[in-house]
This record gives sequence, structure tokens and C-alpha cells, in this order.
Amino acid sequence: MSGWLIVAGLGPGADAMVTPEVSVALAEATDVVGYIPYVARVPERPGLTRHASDNRVERDRALHALEMAEAGARVVVVSSGDPGVFAMAAAIFERVEEDPTRWHDLDIRVLPGITAMLAASARAGAPLGHDFCAINLSDNLKPQALIERRLALAAEADFAIALYNPRSKARPDALDAAFALLRETCGDNRPVLFARAVSTPEEVLRIVPLPEAKGEMADMRTVVIIGSSRTRMIPHAGQPILYTPRTTP
Amino acid sequence: MSGWLIVAGLGPGADAMVTPEVSVALAEATDVVGYIPYVARVPERPGLTRHASDNRVERDRALHALEMAEAGARVVVVSSGDPGVFAMAAAIFERVEEDPTRWHDLDIRVLPGITAMLAASARAGAPLGHDFCAINLSDNLKPQALIERRLALAAEADFAIALYNPRSKARPDALDAAFALLRETCGDNRPVLFARAVSTPEEVLRIVPLPEAKGEMADMRTVVIIGSSRTRMIPHAGQPILYTPRTTP
Repeated sequence: MSGWLIVAGLGPGADAMVTPEVSVALAEATDVVGYIPYVARVPERPGLTRHASDNRVERDRALHALEMAEAGARVVVVSSGDPGVFAMAAAIFERVEEDPTRWHDLDIRVLPGITAMLAASARAGAPLGHDFCAINLSDNLKPQALIERRLALAAEADFAIALYNPRSKARPDALDAAFALLRETCGDNRPVLFARAVSTPEEVLRIVPLPEAKGEMADMRTVVIIGSSRTRMIPHAGQPILYTPRTTP
Repeated sequence: MSGWLIVAGLGPGADAMVTPEVSVALAEATDVVGYIPYVARVPERPGLTRHASDNRVERDRALHALEMAEAGARVVVVSSGDPGVFAMAAAIFERVEEDPTRWHDLDIRVLPGITAMLAASARAGAPLGHDFCAINLSDNLKPQALIERRLALAAEADFAIALYNPRSKARPDALDAAFALLRETCGDNRPVLFARAVSTPEEVLRIVPLPEAKGEMADMRTVVIIGSSRTRMIPHAGQPILYTPRTTP
């Protein structure tokens, strides 16, 4: 068996943030598999077949990729950001776990990428410069009660909090509910960063205090970062610097 | 003023994980500043001065970099991993905040890199595939009580937990204390990943159940990831796959 499966992170959008090892994998691939806008980031070339599929079909996509690699293809499953953060790597391994004997000898590797919260953090300054957590706000695959519990404990722990998938058409109020919950524990001084489409031409950064944060400030291309009690802003040319110092008194 | 300051992440070690935008910044730099082993990763070339300094002098290093950029130099401050995760970006901004007027117009940018926990996660599978947190175990700059509080709340929230700076000569028992604390809340089935020097020739991965995890399994080049209650292993050729599924029942 000479086929392989690589789950690769394309970073937040700019080609300048795609790691060389991911570029090499894409150059060697016979097949690229993924969500439509991510596959569109891989240019067409002779010898490469691009398999773009809609969101919410991760299970089918994962099996398709595994089966092509089993048959000898060199398959790259692409994710935006990092494939190990709320993305395709776990979806692939869920499929592998369903039939571990079948896939036992298949060459499967994960190549990391620049995940959205770290790209956003870098653009804004360093809001994740101290202890932080990442929470997926989607309730597709976990109970809403668990999301609320994690948000409350994260606020109590005084983590900076990155929220992935903060908003979708199916859950228009989820982010407002999260802000309301965080306001119960956090003081009014926490800054909230809405970072949309970082590193693309559509990039927009917006920082507001937690009491003024609204769900409508995010869309599906936004990552939201709520500062810890220590996160602050420094006036600076162009845009303020948002950062969390290393020191806690 | 034509100088600039870029805080850049070199990733965990392999050149194949350095983003193109970081490589461009290094090629344009007149000065590279950082901790000795990180500066050593930037090859010498005519026109480039390398300023390597010891650990624990981040404040001096930050001011030095700012002053060179102010004087017109093109300065890259290098961090391992991502500069915004327990690294030099926050140290630079702490200095900026001390005298924001002086540095108001200086061109300062942060370029993200592949941070240690995400490189480790990719190598092992996808243990950070669901909600997770990152905690710096060093008590240099924060009270030990806050570290313990965050560990306890993170365990209660059932996050996967990445521990940075898990061990140093000054704190030989800190990691054992963290494991003892986590064992109070977490069940015995949590896997613990010790990922040392990922992507370098010295890379070593080791996975043990939480009851068998010992501080001596980590050193200064190790990142430690404690799984959530959902993290599990799949038998696989070469090494088992460690991952956290997306679904929580």
C-alpha cells in the first residue's frame, strides 16, 4: 500500500501563513478533499483531483478520504486554520476508531496550521499571551448545558477565552447568551475582540468592552476572544494594541 | 522613521513549519533578537546582526529591540512556537505600555507560528480536537495559588489541558503537584501526552495514564497534554493515535 492520508491546516487565509510542509504535501497529492471554500484555496493542476463537499458532511468526507488513500491515492484533507482544532483531524479519527483494524496500517499524518485564534491574537497584539482556553460554541455535537458550564468555569478561572463557531444561522442567539453568561462572572472591563477573516482582504478587527458586545458583531468567519481580567489596550498608531501581560500580581 | 519591529514565531523546531511570512521577515531583517537557542536557528548572513541573550532577560531584550527599531533598524524578535503564547509578544507590549507615547508610531507587528501544543497534538493525533485550555506552569510571574485554581477549574470543566513550561530546575516538583491535583478531579482514564522537542531530531512522544504520569517524564523542552474525559487511543501501526472526538453525548 503506497497511498497516504494527510490532514493539513491551511491557516487562516493568507498563503504567506501556509507552512512549507503543507505546501509540499499539496504538491505531492493526487487528491484534495474538504469543505468547498477550503478546497478552492488549492489551485488546480494536472494530476490533482479536487473533491469539494458541503459543510456538515464530515463523516462521509472522512470515509471517502480514507478509502481513496487505502486504494493507493495520496490524499490531503484540508482544513482552515489548524486541522486539530475543531476541524477535520478528529473527524478522520472518529472514522478510524469505528474500524481500527481496517485502517491499522494506513499512513495517516496531521500537519498543523496557524489556527484562527492565534492569527487573530497576533493581529490584535497578544490577548492570548497568558493562560487561555478555546471553546467551540456550536451545539451540533455537544449539549448546550456543557457549553454553558465550560463558559462559567472558564470565566471563574479568569482565562482569556477564544470562541470558535460563535454564530450560525441555526443558532442566532448562542453568542448573545454566552456574553450574558460571561457578564455574570466577569467585570465590565473585559475587552472583546471580534476578528473576522484574518489575513484575507475581508479582514476586520473590532474591539468592544464586554457590556457592549453583541452576537450580531460576529458571523461564521469570525473568531471571538474575550480577555482575562488582566487584558488591556495600549493606544497605538493605526489601531490599539490588545494584550495580556505575563505577570499576575 | 523607517525601522520596524516584528515579533515572529519560528514554530516548534523544523524549518518546514516556519511560515513564509516569517521567512520573509527574517530575510529583510537587519537585526535578530532572542533567546540563545532560538537566535541560533536563524542562519548568519551579511547585513544581519544576531543578538542572542539568556533566558529571564525578556525585559531588557524587549527594550533593546524597541530601541533598535526606533533608531531605524529592521528588527525581528524570535520566539519558539508562537510569539503570542507564553512568549515574547507580551514581553514587548509590557515595555510598550510603560511608555506608550514614545512607541506610539513605531511599526510593530506579530507574526504567528505553530505553537508547541498544536505541533504535539498533530504528531499524536488530535488530543486538542475539542474544547481545551493552555496553562503556563511557571510560577515566576504569577502566584502558585492561581495556577492551582486554574488547574482545578480546568479539570472541573473537563477541558483537555496543555501545560507549558511544565518543569524547570527551580521548580522540580511543580508538575508532580499538578498531576496530584488533577487526579483529585479527573478519573483514572485520562491519557497524558509528554511531547518533547516535537519536529526536531530529539523528538520523543510518550503517553501514559494519569495515575502513572510523573514530573520526571518532562523537561524544559516538553509540552504536556492531559486529555479530557473523552480523549482516547486507537491502536495504529507505529504508534497509537491519541484524539478527542468532536461529539460529547
